[in-house]
Amino acid sequence: HISKLPQVGTTIFTEMSALANKHDAINLSQGFPNFKSDEKLMAYVTQAMHSGYNQYAPMAGNIELRQAIANKFKSLYNSTYQPETEITVTAGATQAIFTIISAFIRPEDEVIIFRPAYDCYEPAITLHGGKTVSVQLEAPNYLVNWDDVEAKMSSKTKMIIINTPHNPTGTLWTKRDMIKLQEVTKNTNIIVLSDEVYEHIVFDDEKHQSVCLFPELKSRSFITASFGKTFHNTGWKVGYCCAPEILMKEFKKVHQFNVFSVNHPMQKGLADYMQTPSHYLELSAFYQRKRDLFLKLIKDSKLKAKPSKGTYFQIVDFSNITDESDIDFAKRLTIDYKLASIPLSVFNENNRDDKVLRFCFAKTNETLESAAEILCSL
Amino acid sequence: HISKLPQVGTTIFTEMSALANKHDAINLSQGFPNFKSDEKLMAYVTQAMHSGYNQYAPMAGNIELRQAIANKFKSLYNSTYQPETEITVTAGATQAIFTIISAFIRPEDEVIIFRPAYDCYEPAITLHGGKTVSVQLEAPNYLVNWDDVEAKMSSKTKMIIINTPHNPTGTLWTKRDMIKLQEVTKNTNIIVLSDEVYEHIVFDDEKHQSVCLFPELKSRSFITASFGKTFHNTGWKVGYCCAPEILMKEFKKVHQFNVFSVNHPMQKGLADYMQTPSHYLELSAFYQRKRDLFLKLIKDSKLKAKPSKGTYFQIVDFSNITDESDIDFAKRLTIDYKLASIPLSVFNENNRDDKVLRFCFAKTNETLESAAEILCSL
Ligand SMILES: CSCCC(=O)C(=O)O
Ligand SMILES: CSCCC(=O)C(=O)O
Repeated sequence: HISKLPQVGTTIFTEMSALANKHDAINLSQGFPNFKSDEKLMAYVTQAMHSGYNQYAPMAGNIELRQAIANKFKSLYNSTYQPETEITVTAGATQAIFTIISAFIRPEDEVIIFRPAYDCYEPAITLHGGKTVSVQLEAPNYLVNWDDVEAKMSSKTKMIIINTPHNPTGTLWTKRDMIKLQEVTKNTNIIVLSDEVYEHIVFDDEKHQSVCLFPELKSRSFITASFGKTFHNTGWKVGYCCAPEILMKEFKKVHQFNVFSVNHPMQKGLADYMQTPSHYLELSAFYQRKRDLFLKLIKDSKLKAKPSKGTYFQIVDFSNITDESDIDFAKRLTIDYKLASIPLSVFNENNRDDKVLRFCFAKTNETLESAAEILCSL
Repeated sequence: HISKLPQVGTTIFTEMSALANKHDAINLSQGFPNFKSDEKLMAYVTQAMHSGYNQYAPMAGNIELRQAIANKFKSLYNSTYQPETEITVTAGATQAIFTIISAFIRPEDEVIIFRPAYDCYEPAITLHGGKTVSVQLEAPNYLVNWDDVEAKMSSKTKMIIINTPHNPTGTLWTKRDMIKLQEVTKNTNIIVLSDEVYEHIVFDDEKHQSVCLFPELKSRSFITASFGKTFHNTGWKVGYCCAPEILMKEFKKVHQFNVFSVNHPMQKGLADYMQTPSHYLELSAFYQRKRDLFLKLIKDSKLKAKPSKGTYFQIVDFSNITDESDIDFAKRLTIDYKLASIPLSVFNENNRDDKVLRFCFAKTNETLESAAEILCSL
């Protein structure tokens, strides 16, 4: 059988986590916390199981959870999404992203993505016969060059995928970026897929610029979001997406035949937990302390780090240490120094290597201290 | 935006369950139990949450669960699947089916399905540009006409989707059917997708004919299976698929970018529960009692029923009662008589109507008694 994805191997996350486990290394590669999530949330899930939430949830999601999501958009962004028609709960944000692409991309369609880009966009585009068009964000600031975006747009552009707060670089799109995006897509039929899974992790009193804050932009946009990133349960695989009904209607047609519906007890537990907004409102401060600790601990190392502005990732330039490729260095760091990270080149077009590694700081302070000790010894 | 699935609306299951809720009807439509699943299994899940299974599971699934699945194949069918390379845990069997189709079907490929057919196959085929080729199974016995199958096969046939025990008819494919399937696909490149989600629900001492029992057939086949159907937790959305490594490799490429991985605490709980095989070995006897009760209770009604041989569905011919279309009758039965079912025409090509309804008997005896009372009053 000729592969539909001949270029695709195993994701870097699977690969680096496996290498970390094999060599008993500290794992700051794949993005997940190594501390416990809230026992209260687990108790809600247990309660949901015992009170009869074990059969199919409604296809678009438990209605209390959809209402809680709508409340969040209202209170944080003063933006309205209708629970019945504009919100769908998904088996993680990745499933939302895959399903959006599946529902809209046809052979020959072009999709613009920004590099370095999270690794699930391109294979989904390729699988559906689409063409990925890359706009490079340049180190060290990774700002969007809007002239470049406009130059890459064509009559074939069907979708633009953005991601803020940005994984892997930890940068934020500005209000000016969003207004530019709104401008260049105005009077087109382009769908914006806005991956906002780190919306609640933003530092230094900056503001997350959600597409839903810009009404004309919102009218053509999907937002994807993740409870795993927000509530420290990446393994629960519950996320959601929102969009105007006209777009969501097409999404649901595919969603119902992809996963049909999502784990019901988890959804009910999350719905109960969302009733207390402080559970997500305190997340930025929580992770800012971790970022600050990590940066302080590696201050005297040979690594160059611009402080992450959002997400739970910190990137560092290691060009003062070695000329190796980032992949070789990341592997050596894992095997010889027992510290796993993610090399940024895997997110770039043609694996362009800027000698940058990504570290996940969603870890206990002890883990961050041990990791920093290794980094300072390099 | 021009729809990629212009013909697709909401699934009949969502529609009939919604109608049942609206009219406070007994819901024998969508296939899910209305009794509690095992508290022991819930306790295992709770334990998994509290002992640290809350972050990403391995992409192909928790390894203990994959090992338990391999053990099941060994003990039930004396068939070997390697946990590392030939088994993937999915967010329900539906996600497995969608992902298999997504990984292999390209524009112009033909896929043979047997009608009446579960409703998730065709839209997934259409979405990927494939063409659905239908082979009709004829009431009342729904036997496979192999001459018809061979006549419908062509050089474009990329996949054949089979389903035994068969939803919605409750029939079983025989050993002879499987041998025929093995014969007609021999020396072709055709992939067989064998939907075996009801493998543990087979009545009257008949044997489930899994494709894995036929080595040449197995070498070209995916099997999809469901914990939801087996352990009375359809809302947990955990299933799996198995295939030879050469096929599974392509599956995983898509799976990792569709859902990436599946709910971890549920997987670990299921792994622990699977250590006791009686939990699934006793399922056939359990549901046979329910089938027998339901058939006995409707014996004197005007409905004609051939006993279901597997699944938890019983189909009935209602032509003695009314000339209405099955959809009209199913709706009237829900609204006026407070009893919801599934009209079979939705599973047929061009919605051919044989005046047959499907009832789900995965219900408490009290529910079955109340439903039968209504049916006897018609
Ligand atoms: C799906 S595994 C990757 C987790 C993640 O979001 C990341 O590490 O960037
Ligand atoms: C995915 S909802 C449908 C459940 C089911 O398998 C059926 O009713 O046939």
